[in-house]
Amino acid sequence: MADVMPATRQISITPIEGGITAPTGFRSAAVHCGIKARPLDLAVIAVDTFASIAGIFTTNLAQAAPVLISKRHLDTSHGIGCAIVVNSGCANACTGEEGLANARRMAEAVADALGCPAEQVLVASTGVIGVALPMDRVVAGIQEACSSLAHGKGGDAALAIMTTDPFPKEHAVRVTTRRGAFAVGAMAKGAGMIEPNMATMLGFIATDAQVTPSLLHRALVESARDTFNAITVDGECSTNDTLFAMASGTSGVTIDEELYPALLDGLLSVSEPLALGIVRGGEGATKVIAVSVYDARTVDDARQVARTIANSPLVKTAVHGADPNWGRIVAAAGRAGVRFDIQRVTVRIGGILLFENGLPHDESAPTAAEILKRDTVDIEVSLGGGDASATIWGCDLSAEYVRINGEYRT
Amino acid sequence: MADVMPATRQISITPIEGGITAPTGFRSAAVHCGIKARPLDLAVIAVDTFASIAGIFTTNLAQAAPVLISKRHLDTSHGIGCAIVVNSGCANACTGEEGLANARRMAEAVADALGCPAEQVLVASTGVIGVALPMDRVVAGIQEACSSLAHGKGGDAALAIMTTDPFPKEHAVRVTTRRGAFAVGAMAKGAGMIEPNMATMLGFIATDAQVTPSLLHRALVESARDTFNAITVDGECSTNDTLFAMASGTSGVTIDEELYPALLDGLLSVSEPLALGIVRGGEGATKVIAVSVYDARTVDDARQVARTIANSPLVKTAVHGADPNWGRIVAAAGRAGVRFDIQRVTVRIGGILLFENGLPHDESAPTAAEILKRDTVDIEVSLGGGDASATIWGCDLSAEYVRINGEYRT
Repeated sequence: MADVMPATRQISITPIEGGITAPTGFRSAAVHCGIKARPLDLAVIAVDTFASIAGIFTTNLAQAAPVLISKRHLDTSHGIGCAIVVNSGCANACTGEEGLANARRMAEAVADALGCPAEQVLVASTGVIGVALPMDRVVAGIQEACSSLAHGKGGDAALAIMTTDPFPKEHAVRVTTRRGAFAVGAMAKGAGMIEPNMATMLGFIATDAQVTPSLLHRALVESARDTFNAITVDGECSTNDTLFAMASGTSGVTIDEELYPALLDGLLSVSEPLALGIVRGGEGATKVIAVSVYDARTVDDARQVARTIANSPLVKTAVHGADPNWGRIVAAAGRAGVRFDIQRVTVRIGGILLFENGLPHDESAPTAAEILKRDTVDIEVSLGGGDASATIWGCDLSAEYVRINGEYRT
Repeated sequence: MADVMPATRQISITPIEGGITAPTGFRSAAVHCGIKARPLDLAVIAVDTFASIAGIFTTNLAQAAPVLISKRHLDTSHGIGCAIVVNSGCANACTGEEGLANARRMAEAVADALGCPAEQVLVASTGVIGVALPMDRVVAGIQEACSSLAHGKGGDAALAIMTTDPFPKEHAVRVTTRRGAFAVGAMAKGAGMIEPNMATMLGFIATDAQVTPSLLHRALVESARDTFNAITVDGECSTNDTLFAMASGTSGVTIDEELYPALLDGLLSVSEPLALGIVRGGEGATKVIAVSVYDARTVDDARQVARTIANSPLVKTAVHGADPNWGRIVAAAGRAGVRFDIQRVTVRIGGILLFENGLPHDESAPTAAEILKRDTVDIEVSLGGGDASATIWGCDLSAEYVRINGEYRT
């Protein structure tokens, strides 16, 4: 009977060790070159031969030099790459022509050391903005890193990209299909951080599946929609946000339309825990809030309402204080710019019904207040007028967020 | 030469005492009827005969019963009114059919006492949501208020509409034109308040100019655009937000197209200090932030960029900490959804240039940091691509905001 089952049902996914270098065909190295005081501040991830490569970037009009250079390189190389270089401690943003030259020079230094075209090297930076990179140190650091590339050292790379993240974020899985197995590994750094002056998110995904650049891009966009693009710490969007995916092909498993769901599942499996880790490690966050909106007319409507609730300071402070304040949830939904009938809306916290038919269920408030003391809180809103849904992950707003962002001085 | 000067230049505006009852033709009374513990919780403002009346309401889909009833009454009465009744302590929002009946009953109780049609009475409420009004007390309070209406008691009405506003907000001016003088008086209650569970703004304006309902509505919308609708405490928009204007006509000055600018100036003159008072009295606010965006392609573009900056938690916390963090301002502008060339953007704080041609002026940061210690801070952003501009007034984000909204329990 196996033949009549769709291929998508024949996938098994198992967590494995190794982070970004769990897939075969990738080597990495992390060094301290002196951009900042931390032990590690620069990492190179290189493919043994070459890889398909795809990128998603910040939609902010103010784009940092590494974002502009990486976009250009992706265009020029038609999605073929040999390495990514990433530094923390300096965002190389708002740095003008000098910044663009420095981002190019980072790619060239990697290309020189590895013997590949500079257009096949992508660049990412995170850290303080408006400050030039110390290029002598950076180039020396790149040379040191490229001479010490090794398999299985992804953990150091995950440390090197941290700014004030409270913990490193990496994850890897083995995806087994009826046509063979491949691995997907990933690392990320968080949003809502003090050091970058704004919320920079960097994510890196590697797989040893064989994938064309265009199929890899499609899977990256699709997986990010429900993971990295479905989180919010404070609604900010930085100059440097970047998400890269690389496919080395060394597993021998070729992704076609039949196996596309397996690739997508693999990407989702590593992206979701990293995205949630970013929220949990958000500035001052004490709780993750999963806002799910159901029965909307379109997915965009559902996402817009969920995002408005997740970014509402009154909802975020209510959750922080374990206050089952359905009124703030209803009011945030009502100002989201999406049309629905308020009389058909229901609001639940952790499954407890608090608002229905335009009226409160205050008798359930004490139960909901207990649920709000947990470190992950589900807010469920039905708009009662469609069959589309979406979930956005956010976090609570604490006095600590104000302290971190208010007491910092440039 | 006076004849050739435009009438608009022949206006003088003088602050006067008396708040909402400074114009002739209006009486008011405020009572404590027991909706809450405060000394005053209900007010009636009545015209001696009848008035033109206009209203602007929350755009939130979740609209409180008094909003729905007042809209209906404005439609039915074609903008002719005899009184407004307002209570604090209970928002009569999310109260279903019973709430609608109670809001109607408030209008009827006033109409019975004053001998006018119920459709000529408008209703506003602010306070806790999801709770029914104690109608016996409310009706008794309305009867008591209607029997003690008097000229010159506007100050009590301004006290009766407060929830946790730190101070009452009222203002009045005399507008002198070459065709005579009229008065405009107003009172408001604030946004970002603890007691209503969300940010309710109520505003009331009275004038003794003679104005048609449609011209009054036009002036109200136009004046609110740059005052009550140009402020933000936390980006929230409540179920009860309401702004009413009434014109008794008893000054004998008739507003036509020639005198329209004088009416508008009068409305702006009372609305601006009240709107700024709402921001200054916002929850946890320690500073007013005036965000002005210049050289935009359209006023809507300018307003959208200014609003995004004013609502940015990273900008608000930076101002709170007196950090001249131009990077957060640039990043907020860049994610506002408005197209402009980031290379042509300039950012100033209190006139001090901090960002230009894509590059920072960090040498000015210490001067800007001193300016940020003041209690009103100007942020000026030029988009460098047009001649439209707009200003939005906001406030800083403090740990006190989190404490107020996080420690409250329903």
